[in-house]
Amino acid sequence: MKLNIAVLPGDGIGPEIVEQGMKAVKAVCEKYGHELSYKHALVGAVAIDETGNPYPDETHELCMQSDAVYFGAIGSPKYDNNPSAKVRPEQGLLGMRKKLGLFANIRPVTTFPSLLHKSPLRAELIEGADFMCIRELTGGMYFGRPQGRSEDGNTAYDTCVYTREEIERIVRLAYQYAQKRRKKVTVVDKANVLATSRLWRQVAQEIEKEYPDVETEYMFVDNAAMRLVQWPKSFDVMVTENMFGDILTDEASVITGSLGMLPSASIGVHTSVFEPIHGSYPQAAGKNIANPLATILSAALMFEYAFNGMEEGALIREAVAASMDANVVTEDIAENGKAYKTSEVGDWIAEYIA
Amino acid sequence: MKLNIAVLPGDGIGPEIVEQGMKAVKAVCEKYGHELSYKHALVGAVAIDETGNPYPDETHELCMQSDAVYFGAIGSPKYDNNPSAKVRPEQGLLGMRKKLGLFANIRPVTTFPSLLHKSPLRAELIEGADFMCIRELTGGMYFGRPQGRSEDGNTAYDTCVYTREEIERIVRLAYQYAQKRRKKVTVVDKANVLATSRLWRQVAQEIEKEYPDVETEYMFVDNAAMRLVQWPKSFDVMVTENMFGDILTDEASVITGSLGMLPSASIGVHTSVFEPIHGSYPQAAGKNIANPLATILSAALMFEYAFNGMEEGALIREAVAASMDANVVTEDIAENGKAYKTSEVGDWIAEYIA
Ligand SMILES: CC(C)[C@H](C(=O)O)[C@@H](O)C(=O)O
Ligand SMILES: CC(C)[C@H](C(=O)O)[C@@H](O)C(=O)O
Repeated sequence: MKLNIAVLPGDGIGPEIVEQGMKAVKAVCEKYGHELSYKHALVGAVAIDETGNPYPDETHELCMQSDAVYFGAIGSPKYDNNPSAKVRPEQGLLGMRKKLGLFANIRPVTTFPSLLHKSPLRAELIEGADFMCIRELTGGMYFGRPQGRSEDGNTAYDTCVYTREEIERIVRLAYQYAQKRRKKVTVVDKANVLATSRLWRQVAQEIEKEYPDVETEYMFVDNAAMRLVQWPKSFDVMVTENMFGDILTDEASVITGSLGMLPSASIGVHTSVFEPIHGSYPQAAGKNIANPLATILSAALMFEYAFNGMEEGALIREAVAASMDANVVTEDIAENGKAYKTSEVGDWIAEYIA
Repeated sequence: MKLNIAVLPGDGIGPEIVEQGMKAVKAVCEKYGHELSYKHALVGAVAIDETGNPYPDETHELCMQSDAVYFGAIGSPKYDNNPSAKVRPEQGLLGMRKKLGLFANIRPVTTFPSLLHKSPLRAELIEGADFMCIRELTGGMYFGRPQGRSEDGNTAYDTCVYTREEIERIVRLAYQYAQKRRKKVTVVDKANVLATSRLWRQVAQEIEKEYPDVETEYMFVDNAAMRLVQWPKSFDVMVTENMFGDILTDEASVITGSLGMLPSASIGVHTSVFEPIHGSYPQAAGKNIANPLATILSAALMFEYAFNGMEEGALIREAVAASMDANVVTEDIAENGKAYKTSEVGDWIAEYIA
């Protein structure tokens, strides 16, 4: 196997957690004799600072030539309280999604027995929950036009647009994952109010017929927001549009108590991007205390999704589980006092893999 | 005091729970010597069945002439699995909101000590939580135009629109409530992506200056969805636009474990509407088992908001608390086996008030 990876550490804790992930990637490649070639590039606030552009052309070129993009996080307090700044890190993220055609953001939501007590939910509700959120990532209100202001500035408007093709592509993906899992798809929309949601539901009802082995459930978004908290175990594969997905996947990520453990994959037309769900956590940047496990688990997804490396992915997961069993973890999830540094956790896991 | 009320029982359990609420209203009026005049009217699926229109003109006329509208619930399984039916109960609800100018939906979220164990959240996270969600109800994607399909039917679009006036009105309301509470407003938007959200934030930042005694917090909607579950006690007054409010207020309503207990008020230009948060619960309709307490507490809100009847509202709340202390409650919240019927709970509370 030959791996050609673009490495985009981004802002805040991004560089230090991606460094640990790359240790795991290298260890796996050595063990299996895979050829690894990778290059770093800028994205986010750090890219604005150096080039004025949150997603520079060189970065885009590099991503286009790579089989996979390994991403840290973006976002900086500099920009957070100034949403009208002309150039913002988020534009880099949205630009990257659109230009790389990253149409499906996939977030497996799993629980870790040793972290259940960190969940805001009662343990019996969340124990054993295991589902997957699939969020459409290049359509809807995020990219619909027109968007803007009236001339006098006193009226603002956004547009939500979806085409049949955009919906078909992602709904099919949901059914394909469901076939390999517990065979249930929950399509989340607001078809009782929105025209785009009615198209989503119509298309899903057509595609449903192609997968008679999979059970389909249609759910309004407000109901889904309730069900995630009341009965998370009722979900297997949830699929929804961009804005609803933004809200529901973040809600889903905190109910497990394992936010620092959750990886994600964004499947694209040109390449795919793998990154932790958590943000750039600027308060911890440079302190060598951030939890690298979500990023390392994102490397497992990268092997599985981008290189069909199932054994490699499983080995990384095993190493992460072993580090938790051995209590070699950062302060956010350490019990009994002893916390390890970010780099120590990365070294331990790379060694385990080797 | 002279009360002139439109009573709209609606669908499912609506009629039986509104009946109990009216018992409380009558008892209060007798006790205080208030003059009460009220009329019933149709809304929802039952209105479609009888007139073809989910919000008939007669109903609208009656509401326009009333000081307050006392509402049950709408929705019927007949329509739930057929989102493309030409005439739907939800259209009645949306039509009513728009025509009565119900711009602010207010949901106080409170906890009841005896129901804490029903919360999906760990008790220590939710105990003592007490906040208010204010949802804009007549703007945004629900009413923005254009909305529809391309000629070939393969592209669908919705429009989100907000004007400065719409935002000012509801943000001011949020600050006014906050001044009477713990003096904190959380403005929820997606200003890092949406033009409408950037107008929301800009207007809120202007209005914020008029209320220097109130602390303001700006939060992205995805973050708010997480915080509601992780740290509900951090909220005092939350204000947001229509679609975000639909999702977040439903999420907020289940974290307490008291869904059957939560009332709401929709403040309007022409009149105001008071109703329980829960739905029409068709499975329980006609069985005399539905919990009437959210509806009875909505009557308390009606006295307070529509008639400035603070003492009257407090008395209704006291009666509800007493019924819970005495275990005179329906099966959904009954402990120790003995459950009372819907009508028995209503009678007990009316008697307590008298
Ligand atoms: C930063 C922001 C634009 C982004 C989004 O809304 O998609 C983030 O919340 C996410 O979910 O990746
Ligand atoms: C029934 C539906 C149109 C409605 C809404 O989305 O506003 C409901 O969910 C609500 O919150 O009252």
